[in-house]
Amino acid sequence: MPVLPLRSGEHRRCHMTRVLTASALLNQVEGVWPLPQQLHQSADRDCLSPQRFSFTYGRDSAAQTGCSVLDAAFKRYFSIIFPDFTTLSGLLMPENESNMYFRPQPFVVSVSVKTRGCDGYPDEDSDESYTLSVSEGQAVLRSVSVWGALRGLESLSQLVYQDDYGTYFINKTEIVDFPRFAFRGLLLDTSRHYLPLYAILKTLDAMAYSKLNVFHWHIVDDPSFPYQSRTFPDLSNKGAFHPFTHIYTQSDVIRVIEHARMRGIRVVPEFDSPGHTQSWGKGQPGLLTPCYKGSVPSGSFGPVDPTVDTTYKFMASLLKEVKFVFPDSYVHLGGDEVSFACWQSNPNVRKFMEKMVERLKKTSYVQKSLIPQDTVLEIWKGAKYQTELSRMTQAGHRVLLSAPWYINHISYGQDWRNSYAVQPQNFSGTDEQKKLVIGGEVAMWGEYVDATNLSPRLWPRACAAAERLWSNEEKTLNADLAFPRLKEFRCELLRRGIQAEPLFVGHCRHEYDGL
Amino acid sequence: MPVLPLRSGEHRRCHMTRVLTASALLNQVEGVWPLPQQLHQSADRDCLSPQRFSFTYGRDSAAQTGCSVLDAAFKRYFSIIFPDFTTLSGLLMPENESNMYFRPQPFVVSVSVKTRGCDGYPDEDSDESYTLSVSEGQAVLRSVSVWGALRGLESLSQLVYQDDYGTYFINKTEIVDFPRFAFRGLLLDTSRHYLPLYAILKTLDAMAYSKLNVFHWHIVDDPSFPYQSRTFPDLSNKGAFHPFTHIYTQSDVIRVIEHARMRGIRVVPEFDSPGHTQSWGKGQPGLLTPCYKGSVPSGSFGPVDPTVDTTYKFMASLLKEVKFVFPDSYVHLGGDEVSFACWQSNPNVRKFMEKMVERLKKTSYVQKSLIPQDTVLEIWKGAKYQTELSRMTQAGHRVLLSAPWYINHISYGQDWRNSYAVQPQNFSGTDEQKKLVIGGEVAMWGEYVDATNLSPRLWPRACAAAERLWSNEEKTLNADLAFPRLKEFRCELLRRGIQAEPLFVGHCRHEYDGL
Repeated sequence: MPVLPLRSGEHRRCHMTRVLTASALLNQVEGVWPLPQQLHQSADRDCLSPQRFSFTYGRDSAAQTGCSVLDAAFKRYFSIIFPDFTTLSGLLMPENESNMYFRPQPFVVSVSVKTRGCDGYPDEDSDESYTLSVSEGQAVLRSVSVWGALRGLESLSQLVYQDDYGTYFINKTEIVDFPRFAFRGLLLDTSRHYLPLYAILKTLDAMAYSKLNVFHWHIVDDPSFPYQSRTFPDLSNKGAFHPFTHIYTQSDVIRVIEHARMRGIRVVPEFDSPGHTQSWGKGQPGLLTPCYKGSVPSGSFGPVDPTVDTTYKFMASLLKEVKFVFPDSYVHLGGDEVSFACWQSNPNVRKFMEKMVERLKKTSYVQKSLIPQDTVLEIWKGAKYQTELSRMTQAGHRVLLSAPWYINHISYGQDWRNSYAVQPQNFSGTDEQKKLVIGGEVAMWGEYVDATNLSPRLWPRACAAAERLWSNEEKTLNADLAFPRLKEFRCELLRRGIQAEPLFVGHCRHEYDGL
Repeated sequence: MPVLPLRSGEHRRCHMTRVLTASALLNQVEGVWPLPQQLHQSADRDCLSPQRFSFTYGRDSAAQTGCSVLDAAFKRYFSIIFPDFTTLSGLLMPENESNMYFRPQPFVVSVSVKTRGCDGYPDEDSDESYTLSVSEGQAVLRSVSVWGALRGLESLSQLVYQDDYGTYFINKTEIVDFPRFAFRGLLLDTSRHYLPLYAILKTLDAMAYSKLNVFHWHIVDDPSFPYQSRTFPDLSNKGAFHPFTHIYTQSDVIRVIEHARMRGIRVVPEFDSPGHTQSWGKGQPGLLTPCYKGSVPSGSFGPVDPTVDTTYKFMASLLKEVKFVFPDSYVHLGGDEVSFACWQSNPNVRKFMEKMVERLKKTSYVQKSLIPQDTVLEIWKGAKYQTELSRMTQAGHRVLLSAPWYINHISYGQDWRNSYAVQPQNFSGTDEQKKLVIGGEVAMWGEYVDATNLSPRLWPRACAAAERLWSNEEKTLNADLAFPRLKEFRCELLRRGIQAEPLFVGHCRHEYDGL
């Protein structure tokens, strides 16, 4: 078959063409969730061909090929941007004069990071800022760290869209972006119901799409102890719902941590104590306080027994293991909802407490110093969380806000708007106090949640808090303005395989295909 | 390899052994949802082997092999009872003296129906009663119709359980059962969001497990018209979210009706009018009332235009098609929430109404006769549905209760208890009035529901109403007593592949395996 040459210049037909239709403009200007700090776009757009699209490291980049985090991200984002693209075979033609007009123009994404750190873990001081500049035939992404580069790649992937003919486009864009808060968490509870590994990994994927960066793993609690400890294997052998199917092996934990690291997500494990430890007692006899009825043990057990040495030895060993297994500098120690009734019923604990009080009387500053200054406090309870924020920051503590984001609490309709309306720094206090708010987290407690309903309850509802924690509050106060962008982002989540529920009547181009 | 003979009698070891442990008893006595009208069980139990388990038609049965409904049910329930069983190969041994001790004992389920009707459709007069008698080596299931036999097979399948070694057991049981109400419906809304075919078919499966027997298909509404009409193809071409991917073809509709028929489920289609018809107007110009602003059309449209002849011709043709396609004697015509503002704004409609009123003045009984006596009224609105029940039944109308079962309305916690607490005949009225309550239906409206969250929102929440509509109210008043049985039924739903959400903290032997 003869090859018909196109008009000269035809191969450039979609290069930086100006788009005048409002819908195309809408597509990009509103198309990034959470909203970048600064985003400027023009109607000029470039079309992208999977055959000629590539990621590359900038010449001045500290990271180059071999950087585990970014190499994997390039692979991942290529498939996210071009999900239908599986092979080059038969599509690439050799470059010669007769067919050069048919070859699509290349588009190169050049990524430059200042510091290497490809083999490390994100932490509370990680710099997630980036700049992204999209122009004809190229995008230039610059960041201090690889974690910032990941955030930039996510934004880039959300800038690409398809027109009605399926052609991929990206508009000329300038982004300067950084997170408002360093800690943007999501809590999963794997004790009240066991969550299979894939459900956790999928959640990490969606967290990365929403730029959430801390997976708070509430791994054990009263109902079950699924963490398989090296030091104390009986904790899961006897405390898990099932000692083989309903546990997280060391290898599972490693997979979660690595999956998270690849997405710039910290894994903060929680081993809640001294309360919330019923399941611990099954595999660790003598750990829990025997409750008394009158002068005899009732047969039931309360919180961890503070009066015996073995408790402290056990806790020290377990925490040593936890600190070894989980690389993050944070370990969440819970400490909430301790039932004192059992402690008070136990004669040993009563004696122990009386001694403690005697000792405390000797210095009046003990109570304050009981909480070390470098401890981060989580505000998790109460409708009047503003008062708590004010009080805790006045005492000089860094705080995390979670109370208004317990999204396991569901209600009819668009309850994402409640999450979106939260203003984490809107409490009475000085500027210094406001700076002590290091972020917040969305909590999905597990009383009524397991793998059957986790995804649709999390997504896109958690996205509201994700934007509040990342974006400029002034620019994102209006939920009605955010709605079409969130609706589009929810469709994008579906396209990426996240079972995100609908916000309201309508449909997506790529619906959830279910079973 | 030499075959070691067992002790004589060993092959009978699990035949009608008496079980003394409470947990095994719990397993069967509480193991049927919805609760049969009469159920008597003993601790004597028989073990079942997939290799020797069979369904057969009773000698006196009007239906025999070739009965489409029951042949398919035998196939289906075999796999439900023995999900791990795929092949006989290598398991069956030839019967001879040396290995006869190893052959498991047969268990035969004999099914006898009085009337054939295998090729018909269930209707409002279908007899769903059955008796089931399980004794050593056999179960005898008797019913008037094939639909009753389906209900009995479902109960039978719920009687079978496995012990910790995986052995299948069934206890000696006598069941006499029949539904309290003839109409036990579930509404799906495929207009506000499109539901793919598999989501509807899966819903029908779970309906059958819960003995719900009417699929109320709210197929079209304002947002979209996914029904592909033979007579008016433009209705879906222009009114569906997408004319190819988001429609129900005639073949899809046939599949739904047949899938439902096989499970003894009626399909009642709803073509809501004259309101809720915005999507109709796109493919049928001239159908809707042009709204006016002052003396000029505003450009928007209201309900169906009652002033033009073409409307009546169109509606007659469409309904003729609907009655041809859907075999059920019921067609739901909606008639709710008509916006009168637009009608009043339109000068033609105003004139039309004035004429109507003139005519109505001539006879004072017209208004009552506007609703024919054989119309079933659905009570769908209001917290005080008891008053409506009282009023409508006093007027002699048969009624369906739906108002307290709008389970698209979600709330935190165990809201199935609200559905369970509904007492459909608890309103002031005579016994004759109470009998006019022919049943009720669970509604899952689609504002916030699509395939991503349909199943976990429906199941097991819809099961509460299912039991209220099937079982004896006196025996099922206590939700706390129902809880462990419902929890077990939810685990059974998971085992059968229904994405049913958890009721509370815990786990199931067969968890949802998700992606």
